[in-house]
Amino acid sequence: MPNRIPNKEDIVRAAELIKPYINRTPIITSDTFNQLFSTNLYFKCENFQKVGAFKSRGAVHALLNLSKEELNKGVGTHSSGNHAQALARAARLFEIPAYIVMPENSPKVKIEAVRGYGGIITFCKPTLEARESTLKEIIEKTGASEIHPYDNYDIIAGQATAAMELLQEVSDLDMILCPVGGGGLLSGTALSADYFSNHTKVIACEPSGADDAYRSFNAGKIIPSISPNTIADGLLTSLGQRNFPIIQKYVKEIVTVSDASIIKAMKWTYERMKIVIEPSSAVPIAAIMEEKVTVSGKKVGIIISGGNVDLKNLPF
Amino acid sequence: MPNRIPNKEDIVRAAELIKPYINRTPIITSDTFNQLFSTNLYFKCENFQKVGAFKSRGAVHALLNLSKEELNKGVGTHSSGNHAQALARAARLFEIPAYIVMPENSPKVKIEAVRGYGGIITFCKPTLEARESTLKEIIEKTGASEIHPYDNYDIIAGQATAAMELLQEVSDLDMILCPVGGGGLLSGTALSADYFSNHTKVIACEPSGADDAYRSFNAGKIIPSISPNTIADGLLTSLGQRNFPIIQKYVKEIVTVSDASIIKAMKWTYERMKIVIEPSSAVPIAAIMEEKVTVSGKKVGIIISGGNVDLKNLPF
Repeated sequence: MPNRIPNKEDIVRAAELIKPYINRTPIITSDTFNQLFSTNLYFKCENFQKVGAFKSRGAVHALLNLSKEELNKGVGTHSSGNHAQALARAARLFEIPAYIVMPENSPKVKIEAVRGYGGIITFCKPTLEARESTLKEIIEKTGASEIHPYDNYDIIAGQATAAMELLQEVSDLDMILCPVGGGGLLSGTALSADYFSNHTKVIACEPSGADDAYRSFNAGKIIPSISPNTIADGLLTSLGQRNFPIIQKYVKEIVTVSDASIIKAMKWTYERMKIVIEPSSAVPIAAIMEEKVTVSGKKVGIIISGGNVDLKNLPF
Repeated sequence: MPNRIPNKEDIVRAAELIKPYINRTPIITSDTFNQLFSTNLYFKCENFQKVGAFKSRGAVHALLNLSKEELNKGVGTHSSGNHAQALARAARLFEIPAYIVMPENSPKVKIEAVRGYGGIITFCKPTLEARESTLKEIIEKTGASEIHPYDNYDIIAGQATAAMELLQEVSDLDMILCPVGGGGLLSGTALSADYFSNHTKVIACEPSGADDAYRSFNAGKIIPSISPNTIADGLLTSLGQRNFPIIQKYVKEIVTVSDASIIKAMKWTYERMKIVIEPSSAVPIAAIMEEKVTVSGKKVGIIISGGNVDLKNLPF
């Protein structure tokens, strides 16, 4: 894909390319939620995606856009989250190495997950500087391609396919609610809403303890996170350079919610919908519960971003 | 419905009658499970059913078979489990009273769930004798109809509709695996397999700590449970008089599994399939993991019976 903001055809093509390697995830509804909020909610369940998160879409798509020569040298990233697992799995599909730089204090469960998908892990000190310099060294040595978790147009086009599928199956959505961390899912979702619907607004939902997207959006320039603190561990990152202009142009509004609401929303979803979600996925539901978004009488899509959570340490 | 073993038409009619009041639950698959066991598994997800369990099917069907006069006097049962919630919810749909007898040591979460659906609770000592005598008193006083959780043909026909839906959507299943407690779900499933498929075998799966169905099936007569002990709290009851002859005739085999396997299967399902299930639902999956059932190369249906679990006390 050319190195520019993905257009409609790019996203349609991304969907075709990744199709054999990802799940077409189900869209589910909940009478309980609908009755409680006098609304119609459609949950696009990326927790049922490969490796348990939407990240598989972008990772597979990024690899499919590398040349054979590039592929043979492998791919690399620094991440302790779902992107690391998704990239390791995608690399294994194409039988190439995935070099994953992880902070030495990463949770054991995440280290094992990346290893389980065949990722080659290099540990480093738990600072952004150490992560970046360690990855740089590996890339210089191996010639691997760096696949950034969100600040990458191939990744954005891949993540966009989730909202595209949602809009194909549920027409006339008034809005789509989407969590925001680095902005990969959000920018893709916003592009798809513009390309594949007539009037669907995209509203981003963010934890108040990691509200750099909210502040950046309102200030008109990227204001990076400093010491973000939230239970939504997938949303700690700051907005990417390539993501922010898309978000500025195509996202209607960004709202913030408390961790207490995120936990409440998460518990509700386990108890009432019987699905396993990670805290980041509960952020849009928390926004409805906090009435930060008015959904009464509307048709509302919600992207459930993932389901990778430490079941031994549920926060409720 | 006449007071006899449900025939094919009874079950088709039950499905039509209950349709407006229950969910058509999804059937989901898992590549991970399929690859691991070289099989094709189809999970009929009754954890997504109203009140989170298949019990809603039978409860609604039983009420739809009462006369208007009977309905007005209400319904009653003794139960601390999913049947109590399902009956209370069904009664509320028809705006009639549901008298629920519960042992005084019932978990608070279950008491609150029944109250949440509008059930009128009477507490009693935690013995079968006290439960039965307390219910008898209430029924004599109110004229309510007793709705037994499983030893009732209307209930059996209602529960049978889950397997009927499964067989409508997935043809040529080699077998259906189904948990067994009192035998309501199992006898209904076995009837549906006989009526709506050509050759689908039904195999019942039971915790070894509550193996009265296994022993009864092999002895050719009902051998009630004495002090059953298993984490699968929905399967502690002994087989019913109306259920056993159906099971004898239509069920191929009963296998037993350990609690350790049930817990392992439950954990796997949360982690890999991202769905919330109760321990009873994990029993058929445990039977596959213990290789008590040979599924390699087969098409296998699995009834996921429910998802009501204390999330604060997950056993893994």
